[in-house]
Amino acid sequence: MINQLIEKIQKTQAPIVVGLDPMLDYIPEQVKSKAYKEKGETLEGAAEAIWQFNKGIVDATYDLIPAVKPQIAMYEQFGIEGMIAYKKTIDYCKEKGLVVIGDIKRGDIGSTSAAYAVGHLGKVKVGSNTYSGFNEDFATVNPYLGSDGVDPFIDVCKEENKGLFILVKTSNPSSGEFQDKQIDGRPLYELVGEKVDQWGSKHMGNSYSYIGAVVGATYPEMGKILRKLMPKTYILVPGYGAQGGKAEDLVHYFNADGLGAIVNSSRGIIAAYKQKGYEKFGAENFADASRQAVIDMKEDINAALMKGGVIK
Amino acid sequence: MINQLIEKIQKTQAPIVVGLDPMLDYIPEQVKSKAYKEKGETLEGAAEAIWQFNKGIVDATYDLIPAVKPQIAMYEQFGIEGMIAYKKTIDYCKEKGLVVIGDIKRGDIGSTSAAYAVGHLGKVKVGSNTYSGFNEDFATVNPYLGSDGVDPFIDVCKEENKGLFILVKTSNPSSGEFQDKQIDGRPLYELVGEKVDQWGSKHMGNSYSYIGAVVGATYPEMGKILRKLMPKTYILVPGYGAQGGKAEDLVHYFNADGLGAIVNSSRGIIAAYKQKGYEKFGAENFADASRQAVIDMKEDINAALMKGGVIK
Repeated sequence: MINQLIEKIQKTQAPIVVGLDPMLDYIPEQVKSKAYKEKGETLEGAAEAIWQFNKGIVDATYDLIPAVKPQIAMYEQFGIEGMIAYKKTIDYCKEKGLVVIGDIKRGDIGSTSAAYAVGHLGKVKVGSNTYSGFNEDFATVNPYLGSDGVDPFIDVCKEENKGLFILVKTSNPSSGEFQDKQIDGRPLYELVGEKVDQWGSKHMGNSYSYIGAVVGATYPEMGKILRKLMPKTYILVPGYGAQGGKAEDLVHYFNADGLGAIVNSSRGIIAAYKQKGYEKFGAENFADASRQAVIDMKEDINAALMKGGVIK
Repeated sequence: MINQLIEKIQKTQAPIVVGLDPMLDYIPEQVKSKAYKEKGETLEGAAEAIWQFNKGIVDATYDLIPAVKPQIAMYEQFGIEGMIAYKKTIDYCKEKGLVVIGDIKRGDIGSTSAAYAVGHLGKVKVGSNTYSGFNEDFATVNPYLGSDGVDPFIDVCKEENKGLFILVKTSNPSSGEFQDKQIDGRPLYELVGEKVDQWGSKHMGNSYSYIGAVVGATYPEMGKILRKLMPKTYILVPGYGAQGGKAEDLVHYFNADGLGAIVNSSRGIIAAYKQKGYEKFGAENFADASRQAVIDMKEDINAALMKGGVIK
């Protein structure tokens, strides 16, 4: 799957993933009122609004991007109905040829991680049949429990040709509280990064491992160090745009081959129509605003990569 | 909710939580074949088997115990149908008067943690209505992202009279890989424990905080230190029984008031009928075996607490 992701990045020339994190506040009134009219101001209505909103954005952007990253929490908050919208979104994105990164940040003791891995990346056995629960292509994983919380995910990835992005240094303001703690003169996130490199080196695609890492765009100096520490690791970079990460900060997340990182934007793309520079589209044309935001993001990042000498 | 949990522990004299982690392997053949006959060897059939199995165990044990802890991964692996069984289990346990600890181990950046908190412990707004997605009483939370990943959970707990158990030292063999790393001469889990104590001291029930901690039974020496470090923190203790934790190891997880900890057993209770000493019940009477296993666990733990001078 990492090979497929890289091929798509090369084909679209867009090291970009669109975060499908549909808060109700982001969804235009006309989409919500149509959904509520059909299904009521209910969990079902909210799920319908989310689904229609996602579909609009995916239809308007799928030819420009390699991948999407639905954040499961934004669906899970609407209970079962939200989970149905999550699954529907995954299925639709895959139909459209997109790689789907499930931002699920799961992680537990071995047998429990195995259940998560099976549910999100693999197949579960029921009697003599097997089924996919959610069927994402990649999943994000929390490393706090150590190897035996991560290994079951790796096992399923190997079997199913899928991949992971393991949290190393997250983009949020308080990520340093534990992740930056010094251990023998080095921060915890470096130790986690080293571990990801070790896990990854045993599980390689053609040129990169299918065990990737999450490193926030908001900590570029740390990104630079982690890039060197994990040379064969694909880095999923959240925090660009709304969270404060800038294109020029991203250069060092890439390798000299022009690859090695994929940058996420959620709000900046899906709620573009609400933002400066995109008001002209209007809420009616929210999806066109998202398309333009993808084009602008691609140009912004590629210009920075060119300036930084990473691509020509 | 922490007051309610403590009252129930005192009333039942059972500092015990039954882990409802229904792997298909644990479920007796007659329960599975009945469910598959009705719904097929499908995700729906698996979910039905899980639900019937859970119902049997809850019916046979609810008068003896204060709380249950469904592990969401065991449901999530069956996709949407599994999530429906998860929700059904929560609702049924609450009907039966049990406190429900959702073992969800979520944790993300602020806005995302807020969505998880709303979905599992709070209420989500849709238009002018509000709904509960899953409605557990407590949830487990992963601290790797620091305060701003935890605060949104605390906010919802305060508003909704709910509670948390934050991972401090987990029960699995490789938990030390990151959690035991020495930082200025002290392990990371102690720093996390200190933080839990700080978060908790601002969010108190009558005698204990509603911000609790998870500390595995498999690391009793660390449990002893953490008990002292977090005097007002309720400790959820996984790892008893099947994972290797023994009753005498648990004494130091309690305070002198005989409170302060609640011990989980999953396999040991729900799959008791498959285990030594309980074969006599037979698979037909799996729920009676679970009831006996609860009684035995209660005696085992209370005897150890008495011997250790924690209760009289």
